Amino acid sequence: MKAKLQVGVLGFGTVGSGVIHILKEHQEKISQVTGYDITVKKVLVRDLEKNRRYETEGFSLTTEPLDVLDDPEIAVVVEVMGSIQTAREYILHALKAGKSVVTANKDLIALYGDELVAVAHENRCDLFYEASVAGGIPILRTIVNSLAADRIQKILGIVNGTTNYMLTQMTSENKSYEEALKEAQELGFAEADPTSDVDGIDAARKMVILTRLAFGMNVNLDDVETKGIRGISEKDIQVAYQLGYKVKLVGRAEEINNTVDVTVGPVLLPRSHPLSGVNYENNAVFVTGAAVGETMFYGPGAGELPTATSVVSDLITVAKNAKLGTTGNAFNSFVHETKNTPSDQVYSKYYFRLEMDDKTGTFLKLTKIFADAGVSFDKILQEPLDEHTATVVIITHAASRKQIDEASNAAHAEPEMRLITKYAVVEG
Amino acid sequence: MKAKLQVGVLGFGTVGSGVIHILKEHQEKISQVTGYDITVKKVLVRDLEKNRRYETEGFSLTTEPLDVLDDPEIAVVVEVMGSIQTAREYILHALKAGKSVVTANKDLIALYGDELVAVAHENRCDLFYEASVAGGIPILRTIVNSLAADRIQKILGIVNGTTNYMLTQMTSENKSYEEALKEAQELGFAEADPTSDVDGIDAARKMVILTRLAFGMNVNLDDVETKGIRGISEKDIQVAYQLGYKVKLVGRAEEINNTVDVTVGPVLLPRSHPLSGVNYENNAVFVTGAAVGETMFYGPGAGELPTATSVVSDLITVAKNAKLGTTGNAFNSFVHETKNTPSDQVYSKYYFRLEMDDKTGTFLKLTKIFADAGVSFDKILQEPLDEHTATVVIITHAASRKQIDEASNAAHAEPEMRLITKYAVVEG
Repeated sequence: MKAKLQVGVLGFGTVGSGVIHILKEHQEKISQVTGYDITVKKVLVRDLEKNRRYETEGFSLTTEPLDVLDDPEIAVVVEVMGSIQTAREYILHALKAGKSVVTANKDLIALYGDELVAVAHENRCDLFYEASVAGGIPILRTIVNSLAADRIQKILGIVNGTTNYMLTQMTSENKSYEEALKEAQELGFAEADPTSDVDGIDAARKMVILTRLAFGMNVNLDDVETKGIRGISEKDIQVAYQLGYKVKLVGRAEEINNTVDVTVGPVLLPRSHPLSGVNYENNAVFVTGAAVGETMFYGPGAGELPTATSVVSDLITVAKNAKLGTTGNAFNSFVHETKNTPSDQVYSKYYFRLEMDDKTGTFLKLTKIFADAGVSFDKILQEPLDEHTATVVIITHAASRKQIDEASNAAHAEPEMRLITKYAVVEG
Repeated sequence: MKAKLQVGVLGFGTVGSGVIHILKEHQEKISQVTGYDITVKKVLVRDLEKNRRYETEGFSLTTEPLDVLDDPEIAVVVEVMGSIQTAREYILHALKAGKSVVTANKDLIALYGDELVAVAHENRCDLFYEASVAGGIPILRTIVNSLAADRIQKILGIVNGTTNYMLTQMTSENKSYEEALKEAQELGFAEADPTSDVDGIDAARKMVILTRLAFGMNVNLDDVETKGIRGISEKDIQVAYQLGYKVKLVGRAEEINNTVDVTVGPVLLPRSHPLSGVNYENNAVFVTGAAVGETMFYGPGAGELPTATSVVSDLITVAKNAKLGTTGNAFNSFVHETKNTPSDQVYSKYYFRLEMDDKTGTFLKLTKIFADAGVSFDKILQEPLDEHTATVVIITHAASRKQIDEASNAAHAEPEMRLITKYAVVEG
């Protein structure tokens, strides 16, 4: 007879019932791995009547949060109800009552992660949220585990499935932004108001979470330079493709001299880069470690069963830690003072698309602007747009963000040229 | 003061010293994660004199295996000496003395894994070998962990870096097989005798290991239908590319009705398949799980530091299991009777290239041969090879291996046609 580990579940939607289902189906295996029988004791629901038929399943239903949060027999609380403020309140209550918590709530963790982590640590509880980033990919666990024996230098992530689906459609089916968005909405990947996806906010939240784990720094959302794909042009996608690149919405976090730089935006990736092969709604995180080199983790970014699987993985870790007596240690080991990298120390190649009046001297002026900022050209492509205007595409050599901003601002100030697009270029 | 976990290391080459280095550099983090101070007590070397300078590093050197294997204070033995029979003997000795073992020795594990696992289990010891497959990618750990909450259905792996490097050169630089092999040898990826790589033997060994973990079945090397890339033709690589595919050496393991089918051979992968983006000496394992769907793990297939990192990860798991009291459980939970899938139950699309006498009736004969075997065509491409001969390329619809063999044998028997190539086609 194994010791029991009793779980309370907040929320009985598709993920919640997925968790309950998996715990039951894999009960024996889980108990062999953890040394515990993990069972669900109570589930918080909105409506008792609607869920009556589950009452014979071995757990009880309640509409009263404290029934779960104050139950001394419940050792772990699983939060899969969504929302931010209510979930935060319940989780704080659970942690202060000494219960470990597993959540799939990325918005909550991105916004209040440092507060919740601190409270978890004070109360010697675990707080895990594997499902909050890249749904079914065990990326957080892998980062935490590999950190024990390596040092992470850089993370590149395709962490928003909706925008990756749209860019895939625009690249391989030549769809327009509007068509791609409409299709994503019809398929249920994008919401009626797609702001959080297409403006890069969702990706930025996930990068905040990844940065906290990989570099031990609590970056604010406001410090993440965030650009989305709203209104992105087919033209850039096509030109990039001709030049050997794919355009992807990529979150980048990089450690530079004990500072960290985190950005989200469209970037040009060489077609041979492993992230270029990540299509449709899939996610992937590309990690560079000092010892291990380049690794990538690919999989579904969302979905009920993948998410539920990640939640159960977290539960298994909580159970192991409970036995190990290492509960509450996860976030202890690796916290640094958060420092953002100054913009003159972040280097990248860049892609520019400009429209220029087609008259003598304009190109010379452009060349001078970039030379003055200390930015040199790797590739230039010029073609006539109409009788009076030329399209100029430039790929620069690596330059600092400060230099690139200087060149952009100077180009903006010239009436003969219009800077249409500016994207970072990732080298393979 | 943490409890001590003392380690004996067999072999002091680059991986061995990498392990010792990482354990020292990450000592504090490792102790926070595991609750143990993991320290190296003794290292088995061939030559004491050559290694005298290390004697001040906190461990002692010995040339006598039993000094390590019979030391009651040593709880874990790390085997990084290579060889098969000697390593097997030492590991058996260590396990019988109640010591857990971590090894990076894939040849040993592929050949004697089931024996060693059984002895480890009898003695309630752990036996881990993360570094034996795909060096720096934590694929075995991920499979074992995710198995606790999911069921794996299929594994596709690019698990040999040498042949992947050669195929990448042949595909993107239009090199010949001989040129690609020479280059791989010059870069040190391929050995002077490349048999184990180019004939698929190394990949087959790794697939045996992956199959044991993913499906709990001990497949024999002899039961793995193994084909390498020796003498592979540029023609097939080019034609495949025109048709939208890349040729990769892929190991496939699939569960079909509680049986398992394991093969290694060149396959055609759609260019949009994530494995198609795995280039040069990199490895990747593509896993399909019932709940989580399709995930992929990508990274360096070899290298001293990646390998040492994997060995240390295994040591961390041993330490955790020691505290959990779950030592020796890892292989217990998931063993099934090994049954190979009959050849009429394994389905795939296939690529054929034939040379046929260019005369009336030959193509009709070919069509009839395939129809008689119940194999239908998805794509056909015919072009003249010379005045009297045509090249015919066929991609079939999915057919059983038995049907494909029937069609191949019948084609072989016809003097007017020569079957040059037959590869499986993986669909995206």
